Amino acid sequence: MTEHYILHEDPRSGNCYKIKLTAALLGLPLETRQYDIMKGETRTPEFLEQVNSNGRIPVLQIGQVGSGGEGARFLPESNAACWYLASGSHLIPEDRFAQADMLRWMFFEQYNHEPNVATLRFWLRFVGQANLSDEQRAQIMAKRMAGCAALEVMEKHLHSRAFMGGDRLTLADIALFAYTHVAEEGGFGLDDYPAILRWIGRVQDAPGFVAMD
Amino acid sequence: MTEHYILHEDPRSGNCYKIKLTAALLGLPLETRQYDIMKGETRTPEFLEQVNSNGRIPVLQIGQVGSGGEGARFLPESNAACWYLASGSHLIPEDRFAQADMLRWMFFEQYNHEPNVATLRFWLRFVGQANLSDEQRAQIMAKRMAGCAALEVMEKHLHSRAFMGGDRLTLADIALFAYTHVAEEGGFGLDDYPAILRWIGRVQDAPGFVAMD
Repeated sequence: MTEHYILHEDPRSGNCYKIKLTAALLGLPLETRQYDIMKGETRTPEFLEQVNSNGRIPVLQIGQVGSGGEGARFLPESNAACWYLASGSHLIPEDRFAQADMLRWMFFEQYNHEPNVATLRFWLRFVGQANLSDEQRAQIMAKRMAGCAALEVMEKHLHSRAFMGGDRLTLADIALFAYTHVAEEGGFGLDDYPAILRWIGRVQDAPGFVAMD
Repeated sequence: MTEHYILHEDPRSGNCYKIKLTAALLGLPLETRQYDIMKGETRTPEFLEQVNSNGRIPVLQIGQVGSGGEGARFLPESNAACWYLASGSHLIPEDRFAQADMLRWMFFEQYNHEPNVATLRFWLRFVGQANLSDEQRAQIMAKRMAGCAALEVMEKHLHSRAFMGGDRLTLADIALFAYTHVAEEGGFGLDDYPAILRWIGRVQDAPGFVAMD
């Protein structure tokens, strides 16, 4: 029996896109419910109570909510949701080291890449330079440098590999693709990263690939 | 055949401690090689080339390095290293949702908890308030608030559960325990979090538990 999946998302978010791309590559149907994070729609009492006490999207809902709230389970954190959807599929290697190494890049993505590459995209493209707080403005240069360092680590790694895990696409590629392929919206020029540019093309060529909204 | 494990670490790091705690709870022998991150010992050309191109510890080395460098594999990212060690053990639930939910808390730890709770501990206890840059000083209040928000999410979750995943200890507890139990060194008073304090006691009672250095 196929489970019913609902993605609680903001379509501008690369973290949400990861889950949609994973579902598409696996041919899994995915319903969406949209929220505007700029308007605080993920911080309402209802959202915090029922969907995610951390007040963030994406959240993958598995199953429908019954009248008493039973029957549905909620999974926050983009990379955990991708793991759930891809469990047992070709997107997760079975080999013990390869699997841990895939998770290694997914943790790298959340720690070294997303807080810099995605945050600058959010600040510069969606919030707008003029609306940034002094504290945010003071962090731009550090985030620029840390984002470039993360891209440099990827560039070196992809120099001798087709995908982050070696010769086939895994969740590590999906996790890192989401914000890397739109890094220019955060002011990161990708021309300095030729191996990354070739890798972006390979991910886009994957059967079932869907573009970000 | 038991594999040979070497942890490249700085003993002051909670991220390194996670791996030592995982190995201890599983009864796995773990050799250590120590580096002083304050002296840049993880940014040397040798370290970047052989151990981790991202210049960070911890890194779990699996196997010995032969004369030609063959035979050893290197796994950065604390939570990925814990996953590798605990693969197939009682520290990782087999149930599909429970496993993804465990990873959810491990991603939460790296995104919402560590950059705030651990960073303030590092800045205040090891770097020292007087030695912080203006940019770091400007971030203290935001990190204090974000760290308290992460602890609040844990507190609510643990109010009705013995461990993060429910009734037994998993890697999610190990990942979150590392910096939570020393959060006071970063100026986070834990008296406001009674469920967290009880959970800390339960983790410390686990058979095989070892304290942080």
